[in-house]
Amino acid sequence: MNSVVPGSSAGATDADRWVLGVDVGGTGSRAALEPLEPLAPPPGGDPGPGGGDHDAATAGRRVLEGGRAVVAPCGSTPEVAAELIEAAHAEWPDATIVAIGIGATGLASLVTSPGTALGRLGRAAGGGTPLALTIDAVAAHLGALGGRAGAVVSVDTAAIAIGTDLRSHWRRVGGWGHLWDDRGSAAWIGIEALKAAIQTHDRVTDDAQALLSAAVDRFGPAHEWPAHLLTREDRAGLLAGFATDVAQLAASGDHLATDIMGRAGSAVAATLAAALDPDLPQLASGVGGVFAADGAFTASFEQEFARLAPSAELIAPAGTPLDGAVRLARLVAAGDVPAGHPPFLWISRG
Amino acid sequence: MNSVVPGSSAGATDADRWVLGVDVGGTGSRAALEPLEPLAPPPGGDPGPGGGDHDAATAGRRVLEGGRAVVAPCGSTPEVAAELIEAAHAEWPDATIVAIGIGATGLASLVTSPGTALGRLGRAAGGGTPLALTIDAVAAHLGALGGRAGAVVSVDTAAIAIGTDLRSHWRRVGGWGHLWDDRGSAAWIGIEALKAAIQTHDRVTDDAQALLSAAVDRFGPAHEWPAHLLTREDRAGLLAGFATDVAQLAASGDHLATDIMGRAGSAVAATLAAALDPDLPQLASGVGGVFAADGAFTASFEQEFARLAPSAELIAPAGTPLDGAVRLARLVAAGDVPAGHPPFLWISRG
Repeated sequence: MNSVVPGSSAGATDADRWVLGVDVGGTGSRAALEPLEPLAPPPGGDPGPGGGDHDAATAGRRVLEGGRAVVAPCGSTPEVAAELIEAAHAEWPDATIVAIGIGATGLASLVTSPGTALGRLGRAAGGGTPLALTIDAVAAHLGALGGRAGAVVSVDTAAIAIGTDLRSHWRRVGGWGHLWDDRGSAAWIGIEALKAAIQTHDRVTDDAQALLSAAVDRFGPAHEWPAHLLTREDRAGLLAGFATDVAQLAASGDHLATDIMGRAGSAVAATLAAALDPDLPQLASGVGGVFAADGAFTASFEQEFARLAPSAELIAPAGTPLDGAVRLARLVAAGDVPAGHPPFLWISRG
Repeated sequence: MNSVVPGSSAGATDADRWVLGVDVGGTGSRAALEPLEPLAPPPGGDPGPGGGDHDAATAGRRVLEGGRAVVAPCGSTPEVAAELIEAAHAEWPDATIVAIGIGATGLASLVTSPGTALGRLGRAAGGGTPLALTIDAVAAHLGALGGRAGAVVSVDTAAIAIGTDLRSHWRRVGGWGHLWDDRGSAAWIGIEALKAAIQTHDRVTDDAQALLSAAVDRFGPAHEWPAHLLTREDRAGLLAGFATDVAQLAASGDHLATDIMGRAGSAVAATLAAALDPDLPQLASGVGGVFAADGAFTASFEQEFARLAPSAELIAPAGTPLDGAVRLARLVAAGDVPAGHPPFLWISRG
């Protein structure tokens, strides 16, 4: 199969039938084209819906980069995904795409008309191509557990966990926004760090000098933060960006930064543990940019998860959300998905 | 003096010289017209700048209600105040207003051009009338301490403390917005309550059923909160409204609501204690709508303030922010204010 390069053949033989996975996030988006080929069972595991551990072997994968989604009442998620699908058709005109899987941010909370989104995506797909649209947390789940049932927490700007078998059980925890939820997310870390910083700025405390300096470096003097941050629609992303500084300070030994990263890890563990469904395998994983911080975050996450869910197995993610989107496309191609399960999964049979 | 009704005489004799105080808040605004009369010293106290305890005796006061200010980058505060001043002139055409004091929300953080505001206010005053514009927290201070030096915390939608003698010492704590500050404010209480509620909604916890029910009654199902609250510019006010429900639940014995109100009181105490200036009298007071909740809030506030500032005297407020605005007008009339102290106080000599 590796010899079949997109664009090098014509006619929908097995050799040029492809699946397309699309991952749309707040900081960027990607599409991956992969050959449709038989799925081998995963090593020693339940193959789960859609079968085996394909993610590790992305033979013949082609990737396109796209724009970022704007999370807002009239969010741009479907448009970004549609443009990527159109770009894939233009880039690989001779590849016959037999199914599309799309994982996208912003759907769960803010996009109120997935039907309209499916219509736009169907037109982008050229009509007649079956496709599945799912929230980013489910794409992360499909990637991390390789299609097996269990719970996965995604921790980037937001923090959301999904416990599912992709069929009858769907348990969502978190992902409700930076203001009263998304505990342990990058935005949450940024907010907690600003809370500590402003108190030292105001002389209520004196232990957040390093966090205050970092915040001033990033956002300007404290009296300018409200005008810079409170009124912007992308404030969650801006606050999340500050989490990078907090993680660096924690890594360098700053006490308060370490405390914040540790509390974030514990909060994420609680979110993940609550997503474990007693009727499903007690299998769990964590994905997302915040896990790259490692250190106090990961230590607290693992310790607290073991405390809250001592019988669960916590595994390293088998693949990325983009892998999960490709897997979703394979499930659609195999006819191996339910009719859809709003607000988690929507199917268009093409 | 009580016999001199505005509009009943002509000519600027002592009998028809008046001062106007204007209080502009996020939920409404008021103007108070009072006769200019000699100020008696307060009973047994330091008369402070501007002299005595006039607030308790508002003989001949006339009040007008106005609109509410929109707190935003291009906030409407000056316009609301200007319209109230014009309305006062129209309502009492024969009253000679010799000075105007204005306390207004939103100036400290978000209005970036007080000079433009002063110009607009000066035109509304008819030109030639000296006026002073101050942030709501300073108006609250002037009202609560009756012009004496010390620290006052204002707790409504926001929470901000000012420690000042209205001359050379100005110490601000808090008031930086609902997202990382305003600890203990009504918005903060609302956010903390939603944090507890969403965790019970998501089955991370099970102890916030009452808060969750109250939140659903107010904001609809939890999955609708992001669309209703995250994208609205007035979200701080909406969240603050929920504090009323939290206070009621606390009063009825709900454990989590009581905990939130208690933590709010402690946070407000820390804000107030940090505003005490070692070079000023250790006199303090708390004002604002959240104090009406009493109960756990007030108990924690008083206990924590006594712990943090054992040598300070905590007094009940002598008057309201509107009283403070009138006092500011009297200070201006007496020539007893400094040249202004941005970003707390701006003076126009008319």
